[in-house]
Amino acid sequence: MYIAVMGYGTVGSGVVEVLDKNHESIVKRSMQTELELKYILDLRDFPGDPHEAQMIKDFNIILNDDDIKIVVETMGGLHPAYEFVSSLLKAGKSVVTSNKELVAAKGYDLLSIAKENNVNFLFEASVGGGVPIIRPITQCLAANEINEIAGILNGTTNFILTMMIEENMSFEDALKLAQDNGYAEKDPTADVEGFDACRKICILASLCFGKHVYPEQVETQGITKITLADVEYASSYSAVIKLLGISQRISDDKITAFVCPCVVKNFSQLANVSDVFNAILVRGNAIGDVVFYGKGAGKLPTASAVVADVIDCAKHTARRKFIGWGEGDKDYVADHRQLNCALYVRATVADRDAALSEIKESLGEVTVLTRNGAPEDEIAFVTGEQKESLLREKLGSLKNVKPCSVIRVADF
Amino acid sequence: MYIAVMGYGTVGSGVVEVLDKNHESIVKRSMQTELELKYILDLRDFPGDPHEAQMIKDFNIILNDDDIKIVVETMGGLHPAYEFVSSLLKAGKSVVTSNKELVAAKGYDLLSIAKENNVNFLFEASVGGGVPIIRPITQCLAANEINEIAGILNGTTNFILTMMIEENMSFEDALKLAQDNGYAEKDPTADVEGFDACRKICILASLCFGKHVYPEQVETQGITKITLADVEYASSYSAVIKLLGISQRISDDKITAFVCPCVVKNFSQLANVSDVFNAILVRGNAIGDVVFYGKGAGKLPTASAVVADVIDCAKHTARRKFIGWGEGDKDYVADHRQLNCALYVRATVADRDAALSEIKESLGEVTVLTRNGAPEDEIAFVTGEQKESLLREKLGSLKNVKPCSVIRVADF
Repeated sequence: MYIAVMGYGTVGSGVVEVLDKNHESIVKRSMQTELELKYILDLRDFPGDPHEAQMIKDFNIILNDDDIKIVVETMGGLHPAYEFVSSLLKAGKSVVTSNKELVAAKGYDLLSIAKENNVNFLFEASVGGGVPIIRPITQCLAANEINEIAGILNGTTNFILTMMIEENMSFEDALKLAQDNGYAEKDPTADVEGFDACRKICILASLCFGKHVYPEQVETQGITKITLADVEYASSYSAVIKLLGISQRISDDKITAFVCPCVVKNFSQLANVSDVFNAILVRGNAIGDVVFYGKGAGKLPTASAVVADVIDCAKHTARRKFIGWGEGDKDYVADHRQLNCALYVRATVADRDAALSEIKESLGEVTVLTRNGAPEDEIAFVTGEQKESLLREKLGSLKNVKPCSVIRVADF
Repeated sequence: MYIAVMGYGTVGSGVVEVLDKNHESIVKRSMQTELELKYILDLRDFPGDPHEAQMIKDFNIILNDDDIKIVVETMGGLHPAYEFVSSLLKAGKSVVTSNKELVAAKGYDLLSIAKENNVNFLFEASVGGGVPIIRPITQCLAANEINEIAGILNGTTNFILTMMIEENMSFEDALKLAQDNGYAEKDPTADVEGFDACRKICILASLCFGKHVYPEQVETQGITKITLADVEYASSYSAVIKLLGISQRISDDKITAFVCPCVVKNFSQLANVSDVFNAILVRGNAIGDVVFYGKGAGKLPTASAVVADVIDCAKHTARRKFIGWGEGDKDYVADHRQLNCALYVRATVADRDAALSEIKESLGEVTVLTRNGAPEDEIAFVTGEQKESLLREKLGSLKNVKPCSVIRVADF
């Protein structure tokens, strides 16, 4: 059986490396006599590369070669990835991708085309890098109704937050360190503003709850406004701040899906996830909470997820894998602020006693937090659980309290 | 499609409950028009049970009913489970089991019979209860060579250790609490002596490394000798004591597999696993470390894993799932003490200074640990990494040091 790889960047070259390195066992597990890499599509030249002989620049060579049964798409971006992938599926080739932007924007569309043409479209690597999550959700948790999914889905922001928590580094310094280490790009917007996590929660929510969720339906907030003061207050509350993507089932026709920083208690399995690691918590009605943890990015971890999908395609040439979801609709994602939660608040106050009594009167009992060296006019507290929109409304109408930072407290 | 359940105890009744509760989505995910429970085999009577009409006492009714395509075995124990399961497989029925004793002792045998008869023998629930682990190892990590697997595989002992660590409870009191909570049986031997964890590491090692590993090949040590003094010293070392099952690849023909308490540093993903939870760490050559976490026991979590396998059998009636391993051999499991590790040691000494200088001379530099209220003649330390057998030999020959407790320090 012959395969092709489109895009010879970090992930694509990792895929080729894993295919080379574990070749014998991969062929065996694919139930094939051979699994041969025939083409690598990339517009760039790679002189001296051991796979130079397989490098091509014309997509049509892959499209028109009937020997090619499986194509790996590791180009990234929406275009021309979308056009390439849909043409390949229509030509009866299975496609494996690590491209979360593509799956988040066009997943339903491409899954439908794959179904019509009786081929596979697999994307384990698009969420959680190497962490197995797509397949466990579809297969291992199949006996469950999933009620909630929440995850640390972006390694870069988790690294930055870890440096803030453990090394007392400012956001700016931590971002610079992430860039120096190659974890963050020169333009870190997609990571620090939560767009990357947004694409991943779209894919997870689509898979868990059955209808396509589009990035524009997901309220997304990044970590650029998190300060060391917030990190310290969280610590005094035996908690850490993590950027989470969350999606909850409200009913068969209504879910929430959002990305925001959350205060996570230390006993949570998500609290202890440091550096560039990812972790995804799935809450099922039979199994309770299950957590999947591992490297969310990086060349070989991501490549290993892609190759696992290639093996699955090779094993399922005669028969499609049952994976997919229904069409999205614009009313599907409800405002998560209609649900209950507790909020962490840091605020400036002129008169501390007046502020505290007003807070209690309006919000009920709160847990007041402390930190060393806090300015006299600063206060921080955690509220009880109430409808979030109501809590925020009340907070906004306090006369003696000016909120600087309001962060959701996670309930897991 | 019709199914039968054998054994209506905790897990079996949980399976029936999950089948009832999530019936509609289970049928849909099974790609069937119906998935109907036809028989429940149990020697006991269950008057008034909603499924009383399906209760039977004669195994042959199931064996001889051609409508039954999938049988769930949740009886436990080796006999007659083994005889029943092998007859069913030979009769062309797929079998799903949660019975770790059966899989650890007879896995290769039953997988071979299943293969010969072109049916499935699945056992996701036999390890880690509801935690998805068998399928992720076979499928999601298929692109990896797995080098090591280590896990907290027994919820009861993890609960006891958690109470010792967090509540300063003695082993005896913690065991009693576990029994009062229904986590430990009246005779807790299988749990506290590590036999349950042993069966699970047998299954995981067989799956990861390709040959059947039998319980009698696995050196197994429980937690009955762990004292609060050890727990406190570990804490001063920023670590906790956990009962781990471990299996490591040495070569294609040689592995280690053993169960013992380990000192686990707090930064490890296995350290923060409390109460009756399980966690399994898999180290692959491409993916690095991946951890799976969740409820390792309990009615519904375990049942949900069983039902996921039932769904998989229903989907794969025409075609077998590719899961299995080769025959075991008696030289396959090597002595893990031939490998390097660090050891935690608690010992009594007559002369502290003489002891310390002898320790340094014999073992090299060590990290000396302290705890409040330690007796004057007690010393505790962590050695550097050396071949374990050599370390133990040196420890045994010290003249001024009498070891009371020697515990392996985990390297993850």
